[in-house]
Amino acid sequence: MKNNTTIATLGSHSALQILKGAKDEGFRTVLIALYDKADFYRRFPFIDKVIGIAHYSDFPSVEKQLKNHTTVLVPHGSFVAYLGKEGNKKIKVPYFGNKKVLDWEEDRGLQRKWIESADILMPPEFTEKNIQFPVIVKTFGAAGGSGYFFAANKKEFMEKIRSIKSPRYVIQQYVVGVTCYLHYFYSPLINTVELMSIDRRYETNVDGMGRIPSQYQHSMQIDPSYVVVGNSSLVLRESLLPEAYAMGERIVASSKKLIDHRGLIGPFCLETIITPDQKFYAMEISCRIVAGTNLFIEGSPYSWLTYNEPMSTGRRIAREIKFAITKNKLNTVVD
Amino acid sequence: MKNNTTIATLGSHSALQILKGAKDEGFRTVLIALYDKADFYRRFPFIDKVIGIAHYSDFPSVEKQLKNHTTVLVPHGSFVAYLGKEGNKKIKVPYFGNKKVLDWEEDRGLQRKWIESADILMPPEFTEKNIQFPVIVKTFGAAGGSGYFFAANKKEFMEKIRSIKSPRYVIQQYVVGVTCYLHYFYSPLINTVELMSIDRRYETNVDGMGRIPSQYQHSMQIDPSYVVVGNSSLVLRESLLPEAYAMGERIVASSKKLIDHRGLIGPFCLETIITPDQKFYAMEISCRIVAGTNLFIEGSPYSWLTYNEPMSTGRRIAREIKFAITKNKLNTVVD
Amino acid sequence: MKNNTTIATLGSHSALQILKGAKDEGFRTVLIALYDKADFYRRFPFIDKVIGIAHYSDFPSVEKQLKNHTTVLVPHGSFVAYLGKEGNKKIKVPYFGNKKVLDWEEDRGLQRKWIESADILMPPEFTEKNIQFPVIVKTFGAAGGSGYFFAANKKEFMEKIRSIKSPRYVIQQYVVGVTCYLHYFYSPLINTVELMSIDRRYETNVDGMGRIPSQYQHSMQIDPSYVVVGNSSLVLRESLLPEAYAMGERIVASSKKLIDHRGLIGPFCLETIITPDQKFYAMEISCRIVAGTNLFIEGSPYSWLTYNEPMSTGRRIAREIKFAITKNKLNTVVD
Repeated sequence: MKNNTTIATLGSHSALQILKGAKDEGFRTVLIALYDKADFYRRFPFIDKVIGIAHYSDFPSVEKQLKNHTTVLVPHGSFVAYLGKEGNKKIKVPYFGNKKVLDWEEDRGLQRKWIESADILMPPEFTEKNIQFPVIVKTFGAAGGSGYFFAANKKEFMEKIRSIKSPRYVIQQYVVGVTCYLHYFYSPLINTVELMSIDRRYETNVDGMGRIPSQYQHSMQIDPSYVVVGNSSLVLRESLLPEAYAMGERIVASSKKLIDHRGLIGPFCLETIITPDQKFYAMEISCRIVAGTNLFIEGSPYSWLTYNEPMSTGRRIAREIKFAITKNKLNTVVD
Repeated sequence: MKNNTTIATLGSHSALQILKGAKDEGFRTVLIALYDKADFYRRFPFIDKVIGIAHYSDFPSVEKQLKNHTTVLVPHGSFVAYLGKEGNKKIKVPYFGNKKVLDWEEDRGLQRKWIESADILMPPEFTEKNIQFPVIVKTFGAAGGSGYFFAANKKEFMEKIRSIKSPRYVIQQYVVGVTCYLHYFYSPLINTVELMSIDRRYETNVDGMGRIPSQYQHSMQIDPSYVVVGNSSLVLRESLLPEAYAMGERIVASSKKLIDHRGLIGPFCLETIITPDQKFYAMEISCRIVAGTNLFIEGSPYSWLTYNEPMSTGRRIAREIKFAITKNKLNTVVD
Repeated sequence: MKNNTTIATLGSHSALQILKGAKDEGFRTVLIALYDKADFYRRFPFIDKVIGIAHYSDFPSVEKQLKNHTTVLVPHGSFVAYLGKEGNKKIKVPYFGNKKVLDWEEDRGLQRKWIESADILMPPEFTEKNIQFPVIVKTFGAAGGSGYFFAANKKEFMEKIRSIKSPRYVIQQYVVGVTCYLHYFYSPLINTVELMSIDRRYETNVDGMGRIPSQYQHSMQIDPSYVVVGNSSLVLRESLLPEAYAMGERIVASSKKLIDHRGLIGPFCLETIITPDQKFYAMEISCRIVAGTNLFIEGSPYSWLTYNEPMSTGRRIAREIKFAITKNKLNTVVD
């Protein structure tokens, strides 16, 4: 297929993976980046054009350029942070996925309704009145784990809550277990959920804390922080895979009931903790490509089971768009 | 080679890897799975046939079907858990490996005899009378680390031992170091031990424990548990590799002396802790494919050194069977 | 290209990767190894010749043999440990890289000057007089993290410093964060810095320490040690990549000003800690191939972005040498 369509995204998060995947599928590729990041992205041969901008608020002016070509915009985890939820909704260039999901993702109450309606366990949530310690406190819209805090008791909670700038936050039970981030892809064209890959986040300083002798952690006044700076790969015990797949399918089915008939489209991630009784507790859902998929530019153990070629999530998105174009069904996968 | 042979296994543990590898080597593939897992396995295009059963006790009736084709059954870590050691021995379909090894693997005393006769260090073992703390207590036949416990002193030991259901357990010294699981493959056809890959287990809750501030671990009553829910990959310092290979070779040589003249056949794993003086302490041996190899569907850093194509342990097994058939020596690798 | 050149190295550290990469690029390959490691290396089909020696002091006699072929010697992290800095300088066989860098790498004072002149943060360094705890103490020339120690206070420091054999050491502030080892390659032929891959070291016992309940670490008298026995792979948050690349470029630019006009050539590694404010603190620089690259025999997420083929750092070195030979510029990349 001669492919005259352009895939475009913003310069951050998983842009390299998205555009590498787009190029592998034969698309023209465009990146919109802040001026100080533009040169960095120009290193990569699979990016056909880098459009520099001074501020993300200049994005609407770029949109006009994008419309000169047939372009599909692929959003990632920085789109809401950079353009705002309303900014995303205003985009007129075809946008991969279903924008109605944005409202359900942003509001932690709606997220919980969605996840629980999919029969997936979540850590209990508290108000300041009924709080049971230990807890982890998460501000709304916090990006990359920054602004989260741990509190083991009331005193600690009261001290830390003062330093939080956001007036909106949730108080979750701290579930003891190990973290596991499951990356899915839902194709409405073939009506199938695929497990693309699995990662574990690498968070500073909490993932370095265990290297400090316990008798000194307190005197060193080390307080755990959860700022995500990287990812490492995982595979899951095979006996847990049927439930991992089934959770993904239930999330998609629920999204069609709760959000609209199209529901969630494309990549999403369940961010879980697995407890010693081998139960998954979902802390959050991310309704787009997550940064953990950047580990799998050349495929993951799971994608290699399904594909006889390297298949990242970024490439899977491009393939879905290509397939939609071929079938004259682009509207099925964009908004 | 037109390959008329079927490779079959049970639906769990490393079945996906085994059957993907079998298909890559040109075999017909069959999976026997409990009904509630059968649909999960039907997703995968490399599985030609999924036979659903209600209980593992129905396995003998499936065996008759398998005999209609030339079939080799490839066992994995769930075979003993599902069918019992005696159930495995009764299987009449050609069974990859040497069943005599089952007796030596199951009994921790025989395991120790075997490993130590291969000049490999093991953590000292105690009775309740001569116990020196800290220790880790492991019940016989515990699967996936469930039922293990840590005890730092007599009081803790006495409390925890009461809650253990199994009357049979070993008390091992808790060796302080880092875990390292070495995956080997011994080919009797070419009389060579290969190091296929290396992993580190991901255990809940113990691998999440270091993320909890030390001053609160005690008040939160966190007790380490060792339930394996995943794996992540490792490479070893190159100066440790000669001993890693040599340990694998000594294990095979010892197996031929202690078990029978054929000894151990195919994949096995040494589960070690490496101490700061760079010594390996083997906690256990697994005498078949281990779940950590599921990381390496497309090959590991070690398999890529040896093979110019993706080579998982599952595929290596299939290649050994194919080679044996070609040489008319299938009996050399099955029991 | 018919390639008549030999690539040679010493049998340790990353020799397998270096020679596998050399063979993939069409070179003849030779390994010089101690007799007791020679048979181990003879397993690998990509090593054309293994030359056994009794002691590394016999290396000069081997040099004569190497000169019978056109040979390029590729140094790795064990070269200084085995042959000494002066031994490396005396080598007459073409030696990949710039030997003048050896002086700047060995001396921690010069290292600091170099890294800081590249506008990269480093942990503050103390003398015994101005020490601020906690600290990590590192002896000069310590290999693989052995001999490092942690001290939380004066008493601990005084006790541990007595057991250190080396009279030369530095006292660094213990920076709380997560470790991140960035592997670069600088090609003087195309004047470009590439990020090849990223790892995290696996150190015994410190990476197993978090698995021990905090209330017992003290009574078990566990003292952290930092002996590197393996590596695991990482990817970095994409928003940190522009700075990661820029740090590599500044290191190369500084090396040309401080060391000599050629500066650093080929692979190097920045060993960093990332703090919760997402800043990199460089603890050290390694001016050659590091063992963490052994994870990426078949390429890393970063090398796959740039190359349409598997590209390890070892192979990248061989490709640089091949390119230099083709352009008749071997002297540009060897010393």
